[in-house]
Order: sequence, then structure tokens, then C-alpha cells
Amino acid sequence: MTRSHRKYIVPPADARRHLETGPVVLVSSRHGGKANIMTMGWHQVLEFTPSLVSGLIARGNHSFAMIRDSRECVINVPTTALTDIVVGIGNCSGADIDKFAHFGLTQDPAAMVDAPLIRECHANLECRLHDDALVESYNLFIFEVLSIHVAASPKNPETLHYRGDGEFMVAGKTISRRHLFRPEML
Amino acid sequence: MTRSHRKYIVPPADARRHLETGPVVLVSSRHGGKANIMTMGWHQVLEFTPSLVSGLIARGNHSFAMIRDSRECVINVPTTALTDIVVGIGNCSGADIDKFAHFGLTQDPAAMVDAPLIRECHANLECRLHDDALVESYNLFIFEVLSIHVAASPKNPETLHYRGDGEFMVAGKTISRRHLFRPEML
Repeated sequence: MTRSHRKYIVPPADARRHLETGPVVLVSSRHGGKANIMTMGWHQVLEFTPSLVSGLIARGNHSFAMIRDSRECVINVPTTALTDIVVGIGNCSGADIDKFAHFGLTQDPAAMVDAPLIRECHANLECRLHDDALVESYNLFIFEVLSIHVAASPKNPETLHYRGDGEFMVAGKTISRRHLFRPEML
Repeated sequence: MTRSHRKYIVPPADARRHLETGPVVLVSSRHGGKANIMTMGWHQVLEFTPSLVSGLIARGNHSFAMIRDSRECVINVPTTALTDIVVGIGNCSGADIDKFAHFGLTQDPAAMVDAPLIRECHANLECRLHDDALVESYNLFIFEVLSIHVAASPKNPETLHYRGDGEFMVAGKTISRRHLFRPEML
């Protein structure tokens, strides 16, 4: 692993630090011996402990059955360095191609799940399906985040936030208002 | 209403354009003759038609019972012009103060709900509680977006994306990769 992709482990409750800002994410999965990747823009944090997040996976996605049946995935947070790859991944199907090979992405082994980490992403959140109560009605998966890997740098990566119509907002600049918070709100 | 807050109506399915990017939002409500505002960072889009979004409202919030019982709210998207007000709203309780008065915000009437729009916000999404199945178990409210009001300018507002620890990422710069999308994906 190159130095630029060196990662460290942070507590599962840190999921909010990577997902609450609303970046488009890459969801990787493995089932039946095959790995796949999809883009996901509709997700949110639900709880700190256990660390829960929800994500909507449309039924038409090749990943839908893979994740429903394997009950696992990894949520990977790409930076703007991967912009065109993110768009490419969202515009083709794992039914047709091997996305890892096609887009030159690297599978790293996860610690708690069989689904692969995407090495080139800034953060990787290993997830296990926690509650499938809303999968049938809303295609909404509730996952528990089991382990989080984060790149050592940059501290504040530039992330992509999808607006629809092929447009992304870019977030990177970070401001602090910590002095205005009550301690118990931090 | 001043020219700078002039707004137009867009279709409910446009909710993704304002929420999928993951901004911290201000949720306004009215119940028992009183209005209140809370901050919300944990929300996502669920469906285009009907236009559905989910949002987590912790039980300790004064707004929790107001929204559960009135079954309505407005999701307002603030820009960085309101940064300190957003932090202030998240660090006090509607049980103690009138947040509209205290923070100098203006109530505008909504079209479809009794909850007030916050005039100073860039976009206002009028919402009705659509499904309360996960309110007891996860504090998760599923809303239908009934009407959306958007400021005429700027086209790409600078929004706040909370990272925890009193820090916000700022998003504003917008890039297009429309030419890389398959038409049916737009």
C-alpha cells in the first residue's frame, strides 16, 4: 500500500464525521464470489452507539440483491480526485463489467466483513445490515458501522455532494464555531 | 418581503437538489400556538414521487413532540450568511426562548402547512409526516415534501455541512459532469 493511502482506524461512532456532511459515496459489496461498486447519494446517520446509518439502494441496482443477500457492504468516501471515476461508476452496471478492474480501483481486505474496501477512497466504513424492515417498502437499508478506516491525510478532504442534473457541489473548506457550542453539544 | 428574499416555487421532486448535498438544515414547526426551530444534520432523500425525505429528531428536542403531534414541519436550508445563527439555534431550547424573536428570523406563511417558513433561508420545503413507523424505534420521521420555495439568487448558495466537534465544511463551488452521464441517469 502506498504511503498516500495509509489509513488508521477510528471508532465506529465517528461515522458522522464522514457521512453527516452528505458526500456522494461508493458502496462496495461482495456476493457469490464477485465484487461490485455503486454510487449512493441518499444516506444519513441514525445513531452514535451502536453506530447506525441508513442508505437507499434502488432495486434496479446490481448491488441491491448483493447487499440484501450478503447483508454487508463497505461505504467508501471518495474525494474530488476520483470525480470522473465516481460518475463512471454511477453510469454503468456491475451486471456488465467488473468495476474494480474497469476503473483501476484496488480491493483491500476489510476486518469485519467480506466486502472489499476501496483503497483509493479517503474513508472506508465497514457495515453489516442491522435492520431490513424498510427494504421492501422504501429500499432503505439500516446498517451498523463496525469499523472505520481513514486516510492519514488530508485532514479535511475535498468531497463531492451531488445536486442532480450531473452537477456536484464541492466541499473542503472547513470552519470552526466550536467556541459557540455548549460543551454537552459537542 | 425584501427583494433579496424573493422566492419561487419548484416541484416537490426537486427536494434532492437542496437536501442530497447534505447541508445542515433548520426545521421549523408550530404547535399549540407556538413556533420553534431546531437544527438537523441527519436527514436524507428517499423518493422522488411522492417526494419523500427522512429526518432524525432526537427525543430530547423541544421540537420532537411539536412535530410528532402537529405532523408537519418546514425544512429550511440556511446559507453561510446564517452560520452563527445556525449554531445558536442548535445550542438553546425552544422550551426556554422564542427562537424566531431571539435570533431575529422572520416567519413567512407556508402554502400547505401551518408551520412557518424561515424567510432568511435559501430554500423552504413544506413537509407533512408521511410515515411514523420508525419514530418510536429510531426517532426517524419520514416526511412528504409538499411544496418548495427557493430564493431567486444565488443559483449556487454556500451551504454548511456539519462534521461534529463544532466544525462545518462549506460547499458552494459547483462543478458539472453532465456530459459524462447517460441521459436516463440525469
